[in-house]
Amino acid sequence: MKKNTAVLLIHCPDQKGIVRAVTDFLYLNNGNIVYLDQHTDRSCGQFFMRIAWEIDAFQISREKIGEYFDTLIGKKFEMVWKLSFSDQKKRMAIFVTKLSHCLYDILYRFHSKEWNMEIPMIISNHENLKPLADQFGIPFYHFPITKETKAAQEEKQLKLLKENNIDLIVLARYMQIVSGNFISHYPFKIINIHHSFLPAFIGSKPYHAAHKRGVKIIGATSHYVTEDLDAGPIIEQGITHVTHKEDVADFVRQGKDIEKIVLSKGISKDLEHKILVYNNRTVVFD
Amino acid sequence: MKKNTAVLLIHCPDQKGIVRAVTDFLYLNNGNIVYLDQHTDRSCGQFFMRIAWEIDAFQISREKIGEYFDTLIGKKFEMVWKLSFSDQKKRMAIFVTKLSHCLYDILYRFHSKEWNMEIPMIISNHENLKPLADQFGIPFYHFPITKETKAAQEEKQLKLLKENNIDLIVLARYMQIVSGNFISHYPFKIINIHHSFLPAFIGSKPYHAAHKRGVKIIGATSHYVTEDLDAGPIIEQGITHVTHKEDVADFVRQGKDIEKIVLSKGISKDLEHKILVYNNRTVVFD
Amino acid sequence: MKKNTAVLLIHCPDQKGIVRAVTDFLYLNNGNIVYLDQHTDRSCGQFFMRIAWEIDAFQISREKIGEYFDTLIGKKFEMVWKLSFSDQKKRMAIFVTKLSHCLYDILYRFHSKEWNMEIPMIISNHENLKPLADQFGIPFYHFPITKETKAAQEEKQLKLLKENNIDLIVLARYMQIVSGNFISHYPFKIINIHHSFLPAFIGSKPYHAAHKRGVKIIGATSHYVTEDLDAGPIIEQGITHVTHKEDVADFVRQGKDIEKIVLSKGISKDLEHKILVYNNRTVVFD
Amino acid sequence: MKKNTAVLLIHCPDQKGIVRAVTDFLYLNNGNIVYLDQHTDRSCGQFFMRIAWEIDAFQISREKIGEYFDTLIGKKFEMVWKLSFSDQKKRMAIFVTKLSHCLYDILYRFHSKEWNMEIPMIISNHENLKPLADQFGIPFYHFPITKETKAAQEEKQLKLLKENNIDLIVLARYMQIVSGNFISHYPFKIINIHHSFLPAFIGSKPYHAAHKRGVKIIGATSHYVTEDLDAGPIIEQGITHVTHKEDVADFVRQGKDIEKIVLSKGISKDLEHKILVYNNRTVVFD
Repeated sequence: MKKNTAVLLIHCPDQKGIVRAVTDFLYLNNGNIVYLDQHTDRSCGQFFMRIAWEIDAFQISREKIGEYFDTLIGKKFEMVWKLSFSDQKKRMAIFVTKLSHCLYDILYRFHSKEWNMEIPMIISNHENLKPLADQFGIPFYHFPITKETKAAQEEKQLKLLKENNIDLIVLARYMQIVSGNFISHYPFKIINIHHSFLPAFIGSKPYHAAHKRGVKIIGATSHYVTEDLDAGPIIEQGITHVTHKEDVADFVRQGKDIEKIVLSKGISKDLEHKILVYNNRTVVFD
Repeated sequence: MKKNTAVLLIHCPDQKGIVRAVTDFLYLNNGNIVYLDQHTDRSCGQFFMRIAWEIDAFQISREKIGEYFDTLIGKKFEMVWKLSFSDQKKRMAIFVTKLSHCLYDILYRFHSKEWNMEIPMIISNHENLKPLADQFGIPFYHFPITKETKAAQEEKQLKLLKENNIDLIVLARYMQIVSGNFISHYPFKIINIHHSFLPAFIGSKPYHAAHKRGVKIIGATSHYVTEDLDAGPIIEQGITHVTHKEDVADFVRQGKDIEKIVLSKGISKDLEHKILVYNNRTVVFD
Repeated sequence: MKKNTAVLLIHCPDQKGIVRAVTDFLYLNNGNIVYLDQHTDRSCGQFFMRIAWEIDAFQISREKIGEYFDTLIGKKFEMVWKLSFSDQKKRMAIFVTKLSHCLYDILYRFHSKEWNMEIPMIISNHENLKPLADQFGIPFYHFPITKETKAAQEEKQLKLLKENNIDLIVLARYMQIVSGNFISHYPFKIINIHHSFLPAFIGSKPYHAAHKRGVKIIGATSHYVTEDLDAGPIIEQGITHVTHKEDVADFVRQGKDIEKIVLSKGISKDLEHKILVYNNRTVVFD
Repeated sequence: MKKNTAVLLIHCPDQKGIVRAVTDFLYLNNGNIVYLDQHTDRSCGQFFMRIAWEIDAFQISREKIGEYFDTLIGKKFEMVWKLSFSDQKKRMAIFVTKLSHCLYDILYRFHSKEWNMEIPMIISNHENLKPLADQFGIPFYHFPITKETKAAQEEKQLKLLKENNIDLIVLARYMQIVSGNFISHYPFKIINIHHSFLPAFIGSKPYHAAHKRGVKIIGATSHYVTEDLDAGPIIEQGITHVTHKEDVADFVRQGKDIEKIVLSKGISKDLEHKILVYNNRTVVFD
């Protein structure tokens, strides 16, 4: 059986001695490292690190690790850090509209226990996918959205999300633009799938635009949602080659296969605490 | 040994009976079809076809095929068509600046006889690649370009190209924007390689822009040059996956491997008479 | 709305006049061609063709098309041909064991009506996936298999399949080798997904073998089942790049994403009457 | 300008404290780490690490680093390690036969200074590529090989290689099997390109075999040469998708584009001291 591990995601200004200080801290307190990767971005002088270690024999109690780490190491190196534990289950809300391909892919991973998480709710602006939610026994909430009701409906959604202690929101082909206010409650905690290889074809109907431009590849991008439409930090991208023989409907059909994989890969990375965001770009550890 | 073939590239408004009429024409005149592919673009109602046949036993003489085809078939279906022969060598001029990766790739294919063509000249706005041209015995012409001299230099280039009966111009990382006037002399006969997956990152320094945006794929695009910068009909695109570990220099280095292959594939398709252009998009037969 | 079409898949020894004869037949009987692709394999002198046309205004009645075509064209050219109609729904049986990723992907396409077919049954040698079948309202039949019972169980399966007029059998990670006798009832009508890029890693535990060999790519292959294990005609293959960081469990997890897409693409091609088999190889029209 | 760096490639049985010990050693002696990556293979309990640091201000002199490291760290952890310096140029011999695509690609990278190395010689069993070697001013040695002369010719080749202090041998489509004796002089220092996605299609004529099998992807593999034919540690693999329309000649032509890139990527990794070999598998750092 897999042992419980703690995971630290760290970034700070680069300087000598960071790796040594962190590994020293773990070594001296009997932490067996099971993952260590680091990266220095020379263009911005920032150091990034992910380190995981077994906590069963660790001398510092789980509750105290954060405090000790910050006092002994974090403050000294001006670190921004985040501590997680492998046995914590993230609670994920899925937003959908009418298309089901991404939702199926997520439900498969949830049910086959590929992912260590919970799905307390599916939220939608339409009722089309309610039967699927019912079938899998997941509460389904219908929030129809019009220009007039949008602000009020988002407030209700936020209340529901907070009450359910949601950690991660996934927009699985949710055909609504979420407001800046909504996003501000979940900074870098909302993952969207956009059906183009960003930054090409931002906004609506990217497959139509791609077909019109006569591209020979189409793609999809999973990214964290920020206030700028389709401009948040990219997590994962995938593509497929197309020819003149494919029309827009073919793009849509083939694109679905890319979208669902690219979205699920992005979610996986987040669930495994493998993503750091800095300057609107991601560091995605493998 | 491969037999001589004639190749027809055709497009016209779609209607019943086109394939039958063309294949009838060949059959009745003893032409053995070695290639036939067709495509109907329903969004614009246009029919596209490429057909090749052995001409040794063909009853219509090579010089008369065009006239007969147009009279008997072309006019009736309002066809735009182009006739070529497999034993005609295209004459290609290569424009370069300082980077050699695409030029090497082209020279390799030329020298190993992968391509049935001639390279009467290499043109550059710098002298850096003259030694390489010399080494391969290809005439090298140096046309330094400034804002002031550009128009005059392009006139000289055009004169040289016309004198040498150039059929195809390849911009192999030529770091100059060619003018609309220049392009008008070689409509859909100038192939450029752009170092991004268009339409993302049009213009200069696409790898810098890609890095800044934090993309997880980079790419390259070969396309015919039109007056709109980097907006001409796309022939071929390729990509490679990147991570946060790659900086701009890595993008540039890895990008070169994609650029040269994507450019050479685009050139191949043109040399083999496999490309039709319609509405700023290409039909690329395989 | 899409019009009803007839589809002909043809192969025969190559000779002059085939395309002309077929297109003549359609033209003269008022058939509007909506798809035509052909291919000649020069290594075996065989001609392959797929042609589809609208049948609403076709002069020969649906029931008579086959007879007329064979009499007027097929016999003359020694054609092997197969006629299908776009409004016929194939009836597909899915064989599974314990893994659900391929089954989910198939169910998604079925339920979202991406595929024009019916799934009268899921058959399994284990009961694990019965709840999923129940959830989607698809009859589930449990046929436990041991060395001793295999022949008898296969007989029962065959009986069930015949009674239900099954046209296509999909082995969606079915962990049993089906017998030659069983296969002989469904020649080129059983599609399997093998979890390697064949012909590498035939047989069981291909991901273990791939990891041991230290490959840098893993893949999956969908193919028609023949008596030779994992040696039937390949329909579709996909791969993903891996590094030394991935262990066997990672291969398995990543492989699932390839397997399901590669299997579903293979099924799509079959459902759309786009595959011809000759000499243990496929011609897959696009 | 890039500073001089030292690179350590290390592997040893996994245990607590390795990263800390190595980073301590560098920190205490004023070494600024510019690269650190590590990997533990749990299937064999082996720890792998690559670490690079600037040596200008390092307190231990370049000549003494190895000794000090081994005494203070290496012996304690039973490390197998290799120390290199970024300013050392590897000396590479290229073996070719008649095909030039890989040779061109290597010469391009050499001449454009993408690689920090020297090419003191090209060796061939045929004279076809001598003009290309001459053109680039690289000594060309012709060693015709027959069954009878092979052993003697290899002795002469070895003498020549030793006299020229060759560090790395690249078989750039060299159509001869080198003997076990020859290989024993350059363990994991001979890189070969095989024109298939190994382990499929070992031995000669892999494209013919791939075509016969009807695969939908073809590929290439760069690997270190060991006594077992095409079974040495894989460094890099690449593929491209093919269809029934491609014949063997098309496979060969398209394969060349993959081969040259896959070989050059493999060479790059070796030149940058990024490869460790263990149990016939590679760890390739990025």
